[in-house]
Amino acid sequence: MLNPDWKPDASSPLPVYKQIEQYIREKVLHGEWPPGTRLPSHRALSALFGVNRSTVAAALNLLSASGLLEGNRGGGTVVRSGPLEPSTSAVKAPIWMNAADEGIHYPNLPVIQTINRMEAASGVIRLGTGELSPELLPHGSYNQLLAELSRCRRRLSYPEPQGCPQLREAIARHAAADGIRASAASVLVVSGSLQALHLISVGLLPRGAAILTEKPSYLYSIHAFQSAGMKLIGLPMDKEGLQTEKLADAAAAYSASLLYTNPTFHNPTGRTMSMERRMQLLEQARASGLSIIEDGAYNELWIDHEPPPALKSLDSEGRVLYTGTLSKSFSPGLRIGWVIGPEPVIGRLADIKMQMDYGSSMLSQETAALWLSSGRHEAHLVHIRSRLRERRDHLLELLHRFFLDIAEWDKPSGGFYIWIKLTVTVPLRALFEAALAEGILLNPGDLYDRNDRQHLRLSYAYASAAEMNGAVPALSAIVRRLAKTERQES
Amino acid sequence: MLNPDWKPDASSPLPVYKQIEQYIREKVLHGEWPPGTRLPSHRALSALFGVNRSTVAAALNLLSASGLLEGNRGGGTVVRSGPLEPSTSAVKAPIWMNAADEGIHYPNLPVIQTINRMEAASGVIRLGTGELSPELLPHGSYNQLLAELSRCRRRLSYPEPQGCPQLREAIARHAAADGIRASAASVLVVSGSLQALHLISVGLLPRGAAILTEKPSYLYSIHAFQSAGMKLIGLPMDKEGLQTEKLADAAAAYSASLLYTNPTFHNPTGRTMSMERRMQLLEQARASGLSIIEDGAYNELWIDHEPPPALKSLDSEGRVLYTGTLSKSFSPGLRIGWVIGPEPVIGRLADIKMQMDYGSSMLSQETAALWLSSGRHEAHLVHIRSRLRERRDHLLELLHRFFLDIAEWDKPSGGFYIWIKLTVTVPLRALFEAALAEGILLNPGDLYDRNDRQHLRLSYAYASAAEMNGAVPALSAIVRRLAKTERQES
Ligand SMILES: Cc1ncc(COP(=O)(O)O)c(C=O)c1O
Ligand SMILES: Cc1ncc(COP(=O)(O)O)c(C=O)c1O
Repeated sequence: MLNPDWKPDASSPLPVYKQIEQYIREKVLHGEWPPGTRLPSHRALSALFGVNRSTVAAALNLLSASGLLEGNRGGGTVVRSGPLEPSTSAVKAPIWMNAADEGIHYPNLPVIQTINRMEAASGVIRLGTGELSPELLPHGSYNQLLAELSRCRRRLSYPEPQGCPQLREAIARHAAADGIRASAASVLVVSGSLQALHLISVGLLPRGAAILTEKPSYLYSIHAFQSAGMKLIGLPMDKEGLQTEKLADAAAAYSASLLYTNPTFHNPTGRTMSMERRMQLLEQARASGLSIIEDGAYNELWIDHEPPPALKSLDSEGRVLYTGTLSKSFSPGLRIGWVIGPEPVIGRLADIKMQMDYGSSMLSQETAALWLSSGRHEAHLVHIRSRLRERRDHLLELLHRFFLDIAEWDKPSGGFYIWIKLTVTVPLRALFEAALAEGILLNPGDLYDRNDRQHLRLSYAYASAAEMNGAVPALSAIVRRLAKTERQES
Repeated sequence: MLNPDWKPDASSPLPVYKQIEQYIREKVLHGEWPPGTRLPSHRALSALFGVNRSTVAAALNLLSASGLLEGNRGGGTVVRSGPLEPSTSAVKAPIWMNAADEGIHYPNLPVIQTINRMEAASGVIRLGTGELSPELLPHGSYNQLLAELSRCRRRLSYPEPQGCPQLREAIARHAAADGIRASAASVLVVSGSLQALHLISVGLLPRGAAILTEKPSYLYSIHAFQSAGMKLIGLPMDKEGLQTEKLADAAAAYSASLLYTNPTFHNPTGRTMSMERRMQLLEQARASGLSIIEDGAYNELWIDHEPPPALKSLDSEGRVLYTGTLSKSFSPGLRIGWVIGPEPVIGRLADIKMQMDYGSSMLSQETAALWLSSGRHEAHLVHIRSRLRERRDHLLELLHRFFLDIAEWDKPSGGFYIWIKLTVTVPLRALFEAALAEGILLNPGDLYDRNDRQHLRLSYAYASAAEMNGAVPALSAIVRRLAKTERQES
């Protein structure tokens, strides 16, 4: 878990191994690396510090000799847990070291941890990422909004529980354009729609509840429901989206009362549920007493033609809780999303949100309100739709040239993703790592379905055409190489 | 939980009762108030809509007659759950109605719900509130920061897991001024320090863990730890803060491995732990293997003299996890706080934060970084300290005039609060409500200690001198009136 952001200074008169020794000594002596802290491997440290391994070894040897570090059973190096001076032998170590393994909430999947870390690194081509390239984000308009905000007096106080009224009204109007009838009172502002899922998981469901969802699903890549002690039940998809025939049976078999679906430009498959399927889904939900969370993260990002209406717009019973976000179009760093649903449910979620963070950043809320009500959002969408179309077509063309004989895919009509099914056998973990070694970051299919062994989620939203031109052939070569090794070994 | 923000239009040709009927009909027909939703009482509705009760009754009668509403067993009114048309009799209601009662997370205490709602209302004097008056917040500087930000290019993308590096560096420098040694790698940016408590509760502790804390404590007024299945063990305080004699015994008796303390300008008592007590606390913690969360929310807000150094500044073992915030000085609505602690712990908390909200608003983070590194923070603190001194002295003087014979209190040397101990018997709940009926919002002591029957947390941070001049005598009169009724009844 250590992730030092320091590097030795090659121009200093102090030898590099001495600088490293001092750096680690300070970390230990000031409690930033307390007793029991596991150090990264020699290899990882040499990469992090940008030095060769013998230099790392020299520094660690000094530290071990002075009693600050010691070997652990696994052959790694840890900060020494015993007392340094006999006189302090009554000291008991703080709990943190075990605690980090003991906490209730699941850690992120290791691959996601790596992705989160590497996304901030420079020189990496992000070929699986779930956000728009900075070149598609409206930097200029954003600055205009800030300039406008800098000219008005604002509320710097704690936010209101459901979010600032102007933003809730803007969201209600925005939803109305998609046929969703909602008043400001049935809108809750959240810090990104991920937070909505977290609030729902601890706010509306008993421990042990079962949640139905598509398989693969974005839900498998996060732990919102699982960490709250809930179980995901994956349902099969076809080209029209979630298959509804098995819905009632699954709901009954697992006593599930909630379905999470991402019907439009589904993450990760890119598929969109047909209108007919939407009607069937609602009918089945009515018959089996299922409530629905509809994740509308990508709804606006159609490329070829408008998708069918949101489930929420077809719902007059308050059966659907709808989540939306500004992350996929305007700015992910703003952290503004929303939930639209029955007022008593929204009130309950707002109450829990107040207990978790006392509401979302007012500055973000104001910026979002101004953006949505300025009308700039619509114009911006027109712009990014056409850019996403170019990018999608470019990636499809590259896939056609370099993957035709080793993979299959559908053409998505919106959103960010192409879901590649490899038709040769390649271990996904090895593929992820081999790609990363060549500076390509991608999202393996098993993040979205634990049993998946053959999919990759590629994204045309982030990498530039030039980056795709380099990365797709490189990826193709890696797949072929690994497939060959795999064939030879079996 | 319904909280309609609509009012009928008296100038409309449509009679008011008809307008109300239509409003509710729409809410029901569009699923914003789904079947089973409990309506507020006639009295509450007439207050919310600003009409008299017979008008409300006329509207509800119409709705009941048309089958949209029905009476429930408790004598209230609910949205009808049965099918409206026989043909749809196979429809099962969505789960939300029970779900809201079933969720894992505790609801806020009813008094806190009322406070949260009333704080946004106009015309209320907030005499217990935990935030600075808008007149003490730096509106001008804030706008200058926004203007500066509007001139630079920024990252609109998803935040980095631990928070933006510039802000973490600014926080580390800011902490250094308080004697806390920390590098940017041991800082986690959070959306207010409340979120830090939530992350710690689900990230570092097993279910069922016991947390030691002062009694009374801010922790009792929120549910961060209790909702994660943990138990708070309250320890007595005296004028020097938490009493340490019983610490080791309590830790052993409850197998507690964590202590939460708010040693400086403690919420709600305003007390500050003496230096001697701080040393004893750390010593006891070392001997009993306790880790410590030090809540430094009010540290900078001294009025008379600087408080003793933070526990964290005396800690070289990584035993203390320190939380800080910009809410109590700069802007609560910015939602920026931080945790400083051992790197592996910070890494674990960052990983969970990524799963909850993908990081804090980048716009808030940038604003905070600019504010802290511009040097404006220090000058602003000098300003608010002197204003807080005036306000404290004014409130003390009023208390001296109006409460001397019915209450006791200490003079706080910093922070926001005066902890009033009533020496006459008054039911706190009745006092809260009687005060609210006169437009005075205050925080009864039982929010901070369930067994408390005699304290009020008053705040000199929010209400103006003129408001205090009106509210304190009014409150004194209410207390005397209720004490008299109480005496007569017993
Ligand atoms: C389907 C889906 N829902 C929700 C989210 C959460 O996004 P945010 O929290 O930024 O709104 C994502 C982001 O990747 C997503 O793909
Ligand atoms: C002692 C204490 N800690 C933490 C907080 C949380 O404040 P924030 O989340 O705004 O940083 C408060 C706010 O009232 C407080 O009084």
